[in-house]
Amino acid sequence: MSVSRDELRVFLTEHFPQGERFGTLERSGEGWAEMILEVGDEHLRPGGTVSGPTLMALADVALYAALLSQIGLVPLAVTSNLNINFLRKPMAGQPIIAYARMLRVGKVLGVGEVYLRSKGSDDPVAHATISYSIPASR
Amino acid sequence: MSVSRDELRVFLTEHFPQGERFGTLERSGEGWAEMILEVGDEHLRPGGTVSGPTLMALADVALYAALLSQIGLVPLAVTSNLNINFLRKPMAGQPIIAYARMLRVGKVLGVGEVYLRSKGSDDPVAHATISYSIPASR
Amino acid sequence: MSVSRDELRVFLTEHFPQGERFGTLERSGEGWAEMILEVGDEHLRPGGTVSGPTLMALADVALYAALLSQIGLVPLAVTSNLNINFLRKPMAGQPIIAYARMLRVGKVLGVGEVYLRSKGSDDPVAHATISYSIPASR
Amino acid sequence: MSVSRDELRVFLTEHFPQGERFGTLERSGEGWAEMILEVGDEHLRPGGTVSGPTLMALADVALYAALLSQIGLVPLAVTSNLNINFLRKPMAGQPIIAYARMLRVGKVLGVGEVYLRSKGSDDPVAHATISYSIPASR
Repeated sequence: MSVSRDELRVFLTEHFPQGERFGTLERSGEGWAEMILEVGDEHLRPGGTVSGPTLMALADVALYAALLSQIGLVPLAVTSNLNINFLRKPMAGQPIIAYARMLRVGKVLGVGEVYLRSKGSDDPVAHATISYSIPASR
Repeated sequence: MSVSRDELRVFLTEHFPQGERFGTLERSGEGWAEMILEVGDEHLRPGGTVSGPTLMALADVALYAALLSQIGLVPLAVTSNLNINFLRKPMAGQPIIAYARMLRVGKVLGVGEVYLRSKGSDDPVAHATISYSIPASR
Repeated sequence: MSVSRDELRVFLTEHFPQGERFGTLERSGEGWAEMILEVGDEHLRPGGTVSGPTLMALADVALYAALLSQIGLVPLAVTSNLNINFLRKPMAGQPIIAYARMLRVGKVLGVGEVYLRSKGSDDPVAHATISYSIPASR
Repeated sequence: MSVSRDELRVFLTEHFPQGERFGTLERSGEGWAEMILEVGDEHLRPGGTVSGPTLMALADVALYAALLSQIGLVPLAVTSNLNINFLRKPMAGQPIIAYARMLRVGKVLGVGEVYLRSKGSDDPVAHATISYSIPASR
């Protein structure tokens, strides 16, 4: 099954009403998604850099979108494990781009990875691997 | 070096002005800290349960407090790795309590773990291990 | 269901014929297990300290034993995620003790943690969290 | 600094005398390395599939080689964190190929990722992210 970017956008907006905090779906395809986060004051930590929780939330939503683009719009998948390495300071004043893709989608578990970078740079600011539990009854 | 709970509270409030989103320091000692988060609408995900990013942010701040209680009020320690397992749904309407303690504080790296549970229950809703890079010049 | 230490030992020996490389089950109870590894040359890395892969293998078997002590002797549970932090050098010439306990055993996923330390010391040399996929048909 | 594949091979052989258990360096460049493991009986777990500890050890050595190819032949870098997701059963009778690359090499910490797959397949059997502490005095 494959889900269009527009269907996925509507679904994410409905299920994450505070979605602007988590970024906007830019592009997606079967098993991958790209989101962009325009950085606002609520995303910053002391010193003016994007906070770790902001990056974790963005990674989580981006890979969730990648998973849904493959298995369909199942609202009940939940994150079971998240591992993130923070690699570099994001560039000041630049949006954060998250590229997420699934590495494996099984019957009850989906695993993927996410690269986060500042717009205008290729160097990752963080890298995450995330697992989702998929409800058996889908 | 040891830091009192009141010193730590003032420091966290100054450095995390949006602190009420991240919880309140209840108790602390050398190398450990306990925080409590009163759950509000901004912490919920669809379905009414506490969101993953809220739990990750709480774990991160709680272990940061545990680290500072041991090394002193160094503002420049940054999270380098975070691994979290989500174990159970939090109990509806209950605050989340985070108990954090350091496992190892070296010269350039500190590592610890955090148990998150709903107030009134002993079962962990999540468990995290987190590493911090400590600036060499402290 | 609970499994006795002796039943668990026999099972581990049958299923891990190279078991002496992975340690010996010392004690166990529902949802926890303690193993000990007598360190030999094959466990050392250059410099004479216990190698990382040895510690990872020991952690994995110890928590597997903890899981089986709770769900019964199911041979088909497989490791899905392992996260380990290496904290200190083990003490030279001392066995390694692994204390493992489950944090959550669900229908399809079990998650737990393991503390590894040198015999005669309380400081952990490593800490691991591990997830297992449990076959649905048990 | 860059290190040739042959220099790296000699170094790994000297420092991992039990190296055949960990695979052979096939190719390398600045910040990346590819290793291959011919699977023998000592690498198998019950049921005949490649064991988790074998895959973890291979991932660890492959990324260590990638790190050394960038920072030079520093014998004292040590693994500080390893996270691995097991994704699929390896193909029976096939060697395992590990492709490792650094995501970030800082002054005291190096972080990278490793894809493990069976020869003849593009699907990853496992994916690991690993951090190394780099001695300050290099």
